[in-house]
Amino acid sequence: MANNLLQGKRGIIFGALDEQSIAWKVAERCVEEGAKITLTNAPVAMRFGQINELGTKLNAEIIPADATSMEDLENLFTKSMEALGGKIDFVLHSIGMSINVRKGKDYTDLNHEWMLKTFDVSAISFHKMMQTMMKLDAINEGGSILALTYIAAQRVFPDYSEMAESKALLESFARSFGYHYGVQKKVRVNTISQSPTFTTAGSGVKGFKEFFDYADKMSPLGNASALSCADYCVTMFSDLTRMVTMQNLYNDGGFSSMGMSPAILGL
Amino acid sequence: MANNLLQGKRGIIFGALDEQSIAWKVAERCVEEGAKITLTNAPVAMRFGQINELGTKLNAEIIPADATSMEDLENLFTKSMEALGGKIDFVLHSIGMSINVRKGKDYTDLNHEWMLKTFDVSAISFHKMMQTMMKLDAINEGGSILALTYIAAQRVFPDYSEMAESKALLESFARSFGYHYGVQKKVRVNTISQSPTFTTAGSGVKGFKEFFDYADKMSPLGNASALSCADYCVTMFSDLTRMVTMQNLYNDGGFSSMGMSPAILGL
Amino acid sequence: MANNLLQGKRGIIFGALDEQSIAWKVAERCVEEGAKITLTNAPVAMRFGQINELGTKLNAEIIPADATSMEDLENLFTKSMEALGGKIDFVLHSIGMSINVRKGKDYTDLNHEWMLKTFDVSAISFHKMMQTMMKLDAINEGGSILALTYIAAQRVFPDYSEMAESKALLESFARSFGYHYGVQKKVRVNTISQSPTFTTAGSGVKGFKEFFDYADKMSPLGNASALSCADYCVTMFSDLTRMVTMQNLYNDGGFSSMGMSPAILGL
Amino acid sequence: MANNLLQGKRGIIFGALDEQSIAWKVAERCVEEGAKITLTNAPVAMRFGQINELGTKLNAEIIPADATSMEDLENLFTKSMEALGGKIDFVLHSIGMSINVRKGKDYTDLNHEWMLKTFDVSAISFHKMMQTMMKLDAINEGGSILALTYIAAQRVFPDYSEMAESKALLESFARSFGYHYGVQKKVRVNTISQSPTFTTAGSGVKGFKEFFDYADKMSPLGNASALSCADYCVTMFSDLTRMVTMQNLYNDGGFSSMGMSPAILGL
Repeated sequence: MANNLLQGKRGIIFGALDEQSIAWKVAERCVEEGAKITLTNAPVAMRFGQINELGTKLNAEIIPADATSMEDLENLFTKSMEALGGKIDFVLHSIGMSINVRKGKDYTDLNHEWMLKTFDVSAISFHKMMQTMMKLDAINEGGSILALTYIAAQRVFPDYSEMAESKALLESFARSFGYHYGVQKKVRVNTISQSPTFTTAGSGVKGFKEFFDYADKMSPLGNASALSCADYCVTMFSDLTRMVTMQNLYNDGGFSSMGMSPAILGL
Repeated sequence: MANNLLQGKRGIIFGALDEQSIAWKVAERCVEEGAKITLTNAPVAMRFGQINELGTKLNAEIIPADATSMEDLENLFTKSMEALGGKIDFVLHSIGMSINVRKGKDYTDLNHEWMLKTFDVSAISFHKMMQTMMKLDAINEGGSILALTYIAAQRVFPDYSEMAESKALLESFARSFGYHYGVQKKVRVNTISQSPTFTTAGSGVKGFKEFFDYADKMSPLGNASALSCADYCVTMFSDLTRMVTMQNLYNDGGFSSMGMSPAILGL
Repeated sequence: MANNLLQGKRGIIFGALDEQSIAWKVAERCVEEGAKITLTNAPVAMRFGQINELGTKLNAEIIPADATSMEDLENLFTKSMEALGGKIDFVLHSIGMSINVRKGKDYTDLNHEWMLKTFDVSAISFHKMMQTMMKLDAINEGGSILALTYIAAQRVFPDYSEMAESKALLESFARSFGYHYGVQKKVRVNTISQSPTFTTAGSGVKGFKEFFDYADKMSPLGNASALSCADYCVTMFSDLTRMVTMQNLYNDGGFSSMGMSPAILGL
Repeated sequence: MANNLLQGKRGIIFGALDEQSIAWKVAERCVEEGAKITLTNAPVAMRFGQINELGTKLNAEIIPADATSMEDLENLFTKSMEALGGKIDFVLHSIGMSINVRKGKDYTDLNHEWMLKTFDVSAISFHKMMQTMMKLDAINEGGSILALTYIAAQRVFPDYSEMAESKALLESFARSFGYHYGVQKKVRVNTISQSPTFTTAGSGVKGFKEFFDYADKMSPLGNASALSCADYCVTMFSDLTRMVTMQNLYNDGGFSSMGMSPAILGL
């Protein structure tokens, strides 16, 4: 199904852990569409995942980076431009982590030090990434930056806890930085708000299965898969969407526009 | 720049009047991407426009239809399936007309008979179109339906007058019918909310030039052209966006996410 | 619980049918808060309801009006100013009717003549009302106009059918006319988006009970009652909200901000 | 204009600095409406402001608290309940501070340590405040919590810089905590999104005057004053809005619903 949509483009994919990762599928689809990419993830995440396999398969260099470290980010972009032979055309940010969620803390009894860490890893890293790219002039005019988000930024899903705030923050960074990057370099910045997806990260959240089934029933087309998200990312990285920026785009089978579905009531 | 994104697909394009029409560009781009299409417009609009040229150029049959007439619509879909050799994969609705605007009536002194006509032509036609297609089972599973809209459905642009209400109506039809079409046939229904565009229709609106320049300055990427809209439509008709439905998607250079731009203040 | 919030104000309440009506509660609460009001409803609705009782109880003149008739509306505002001894300070529009819903037509098989009637009665009447008031200069500076709406204008509730479009239209009229009325007369125009409510009108909709219970469970505070809506209307008619305009305000126990509730899943 | 709307209620007002502060006006109006209150601010802010005058005038105890310190917050709520003779009915959060803005850092060149501080002071303090209140069971059933926010959470105002993200975060906390507080205690949590206001804090932002005038022209009713905001807060603290929760409410003269105003174009 390749259409050469990304022929000649260079990209960086954050957050591919294993085959279930959305970022993994995005990486595969981008290469299928003709792009050359580098892969990155946190050193600790790399130990648990299979990113090396993916790198080999896609002939993509892997450059570890702690996305909260300006130094690591600078190294990542510099090395990526070397490896790919020029400035970057697209980037995917697919990073999220909450210690409070992992430790099972109630939303009304959170540890605020951990919360700061959550925001730093899951959202501020997006600002740091763009700030570094701009400083290094690392992206081509007309480039495209995406981050993955979730509708908990708009509506309450109690088990999502402080990740709701992380995503609200992330989407705000996309708008704010999107303005500056648009004016200065015609670069687009958008977020894709994806259906709940069975990833190693996602499925760890409490009550995830019920959540997933609920969303699946509520969505007229059912939940969107990681692969469909990757396809959507490809269109957003391509030149066919050059005037779309500072948007939050739902890839969710219609969930976000539903108020109530007879399927939920068992009618 | 063709990527064969619509190879083997059949489509119908409403509303191509002349070279400035967004629908005109969409028709051209769809054919470039491998689609076979038919063209339609109101009999009266066809007399003023150059749709025949376009038909010849794209080898597309032209089937006149008053989009408010269920009979004409039934004829259009039946004939289109014959001409294209099968069920339809995508449709573009690009229709709008307001007698009150044409006659220069103030928004606080509208003729309500004309208003009903405006809604019938500009919005209800979209429901009629989908109802007819569903009745005839005229669309393939996974098909994609788009209508063009404007941000006046969300925010007030005084000169846009009752067309604001038409677009609010249109977008609501997209959501509501999108639910039913999604559940029954996996068909997507979305609207694209486009920058102000210099078309024969658009530029007739009072104060359009000021409006256009204002939006152009306010948008970090500037106003989106008709061609960029056509590119975006291609991605939405393609199989790469199969889980996106019931959405209103801005192709507007970031206008919709701006609160204030220094460019407006001349800072 | 009276606080004299509407002391000395004159108002008109559309749509009180019987004790279950939201408009009925609003009328009672406005009078409790010191207002003088007139009541109006369609001649046909008046025959079925108990509006005469309410008029007697509240010492309010009843002036029948078909809200789609400019003549009737002109008569209503003229007579109301006479009866109340001056210009109007606030108005409630609480009108909705769909023949397609009454007749049980599927959303994908609607009668479009009836649809036009639905829009005329349920939404265009709001524009006609404001246009008439402006023409007669019938409202005081700083006055407040409200219409009741439902979240189906934003999200799909399949059984709500074409009333979703009516409400989208109604809310758009509030924004558009709110601009003109704000600039010209400092008059506010807002809509209140209310929880599903057991009224004679509401409970006639197919599946209403399930719908009501679902919303009740989904809402952290439960569904808002007609009385709570009336309280909210009082604040919006009062001078304490003079800078709030062109807004859609949810009185819904939090429903509109929920994505998923454990209460729905039975967790 | 007192209506005894808060008769018998107990409240806490954060953030009154001087007469220009919105929180100052809210404190005055709440007392006028019959409430008993305590006042709080950061120790450092208290030195620069005139909060002691306000305390004397309103007969309100002043309890200094660093809103980022759980200890200070615990002390504040404990002392407030003692001073007021019972549990709290309403709270206003009006706190915001950005070192990056103060130091004039460009949005594309921010100091991320300072950013964390900004978020902690301006937004996380809201979560900390609610977490502490819940732990101490310090609020009565049906109580009302408000925070002041700005439309930069939804749309880009470049000079607002990282305060946009702070407000996005703040509004998300309101929704998320509003769910838990609603379910457990019928407590409402909302944010009021206010026009740009000439306060000591607001007017320090770069380009504030242009910003203010632009918003004033764009808003059909002009910018909302601090006093009008205080009036609106009173309605939200009163029992008349008990079913309104998890909402972001604009007190902005209609700004948020405008797309373009002829007043801006000088037409």
